[in-house]
Amino acid sequence: MSEIVRFGVSIPEGLLQKFDQYLRRKHYRNRSEAIRDLIREKLVEEEWRQSRSEVVGTITYVYDHHKRELTDRLLHLQHNHYAQIISTQHVHLDHDRCLEVIIVKGPASAVRELADRIKALKGILHCSLSMTTTGKDLL
Amino acid sequence: MSEIVRFGVSIPEGLLQKFDQYLRRKHYRNRSEAIRDLIREKLVEEEWRQSRSEVVGTITYVYDHHKRELTDRLLHLQHNHYAQIISTQHVHLDHDRCLEVIIVKGPASAVRELADRIKALKGILHCSLSMTTTGKDLL
Amino acid sequence: MSEIVRFGVSIPEGLLQKFDQYLRRKHYRNRSEAIRDLIREKLVEEEWRQSRSEVVGTITYVYDHHKRELTDRLLHLQHNHYAQIISTQHVHLDHDRCLEVIIVKGPASAVRELADRIKALKGILHCSLSMTTTGKDLL
Amino acid sequence: MSEIVRFGVSIPEGLLQKFDQYLRRKHYRNRSEAIRDLIREKLVEEEWRQSRSEVVGTITYVYDHHKRELTDRLLHLQHNHYAQIISTQHVHLDHDRCLEVIIVKGPASAVRELADRIKALKGILHCSLSMTTTGKDLL
Repeated sequence: MSEIVRFGVSIPEGLLQKFDQYLRRKHYRNRSEAIRDLIREKLVEEEWRQSRSEVVGTITYVYDHHKRELTDRLLHLQHNHYAQIISTQHVHLDHDRCLEVIIVKGPASAVRELADRIKALKGILHCSLSMTTTGKDLL
Repeated sequence: MSEIVRFGVSIPEGLLQKFDQYLRRKHYRNRSEAIRDLIREKLVEEEWRQSRSEVVGTITYVYDHHKRELTDRLLHLQHNHYAQIISTQHVHLDHDRCLEVIIVKGPASAVRELADRIKALKGILHCSLSMTTTGKDLL
Repeated sequence: MSEIVRFGVSIPEGLLQKFDQYLRRKHYRNRSEAIRDLIREKLVEEEWRQSRSEVVGTITYVYDHHKRELTDRLLHLQHNHYAQIISTQHVHLDHDRCLEVIIVKGPASAVRELADRIKALKGILHCSLSMTTTGKDLL
Repeated sequence: MSEIVRFGVSIPEGLLQKFDQYLRRKHYRNRSEAIRDLIREKLVEEEWRQSRSEVVGTITYVYDHHKRELTDRLLHLQHNHYAQIISTQHVHLDHDRCLEVIIVKGPASAVRELADRIKALKGILHCSLSMTTTGKDLL
């Protein structure tokens, strides 16, 4: 982790007041923490736009486990992408439905491709990709 | 416009370097300007979440002007919402297609409702709502 | 405009009921119109991901016209990008603030670049890019 | 699960061709599956707009486990929201950084509030909320 430095920001007083109200609504303890968050969010957004950046993400999907062959297809697909998969977590939402979260790490384009393939399977009710980061560039 | 004040931000040196690279890619002249933009973007996002905030936006849509009755319906709809419409701009994209931009101002929920109604008309090929602000709270 | 064809969709009855409720909330007259909209939205999203696709968009920004040199810089920037600019519309929001909408057409990357440059100018309070389409591929 | 029914969609031939190309790029096996996905995505988006809907989501965050007190604060926060938390998964990204995924279920507003509180903690490098569904209304 690199050293902590400081820089100054010039801002109209009225805008700063609005920002301080935002901090309170969002439970921030101080301005620096909120500013660092705004910066990191932008950088992570940009990482994901580069198809070759190494990113980290989670793929969350809800499905009906009674669908024939779906479980097999999901397993097969995950094995084809094992190099990008760190781990999988499974939740029984109710009698019929399951939720799984896969934690993935790899080039942005490969991670998107895996999410697309899961989403396209019959029986998958919803699939969403959450984009985060290895954090390597954020320290 | 309120007075300019200053505040300091503590940040790891590595993260600041990444931020400075971002500034250059995005053509910012200094950090303060970029920080103010990050703050204002968040505040405008929040304004639009409150259905009663007064917001400003543009509704852009592309349509096929040969569709019977579409022009009439668009006019009719706009007159029903005249209180929220500031002005309209029209472009002939090619022989068949037109683009119009309506500048709107009013409660967020009324502006969304107008965009939904335009989008639902037959012959509208694409309709997008761009959310901005009166700027009153950003100075 | 190409000929109208038909295709069938298989869907669980419960999901269709939810979709029909959505249609009513959004003022659609029939399912086909809503389905065509869902399809066109996805295609426009993809157009904008390809940096070389020719797209159409609007750049909306709010600014304080008392800022010295801002008006000059905006004009200068627009002249540098005249090949992508179709037209500009100006609204006086109040005593201090103006809103402008530029209608742009060109490669997705050039249009984003222009929006980034406007956003980075000092005195621009908010700038948003609305992504739409020439509609060429949607008929 | 409800019975499968069918309905017909009228569409210009050119738009259908573009849609078929989209299906292939996204690995869909047939049009019905892709249409059902487009519909379900819109419905899930709307669920999350209603602050009282019961939703399911995942909160993913990356943090530096050397930060003093952060682990304690995360645990404390999670215990305060235990009623909405189904389970948590932890990954050691490298020597310094961890990633955690919390699976949450509850009113949309409570889930957002928990994500905001985690994001605001010092030492959290990135936090993202992935919005999905119990799937109850999608069958």
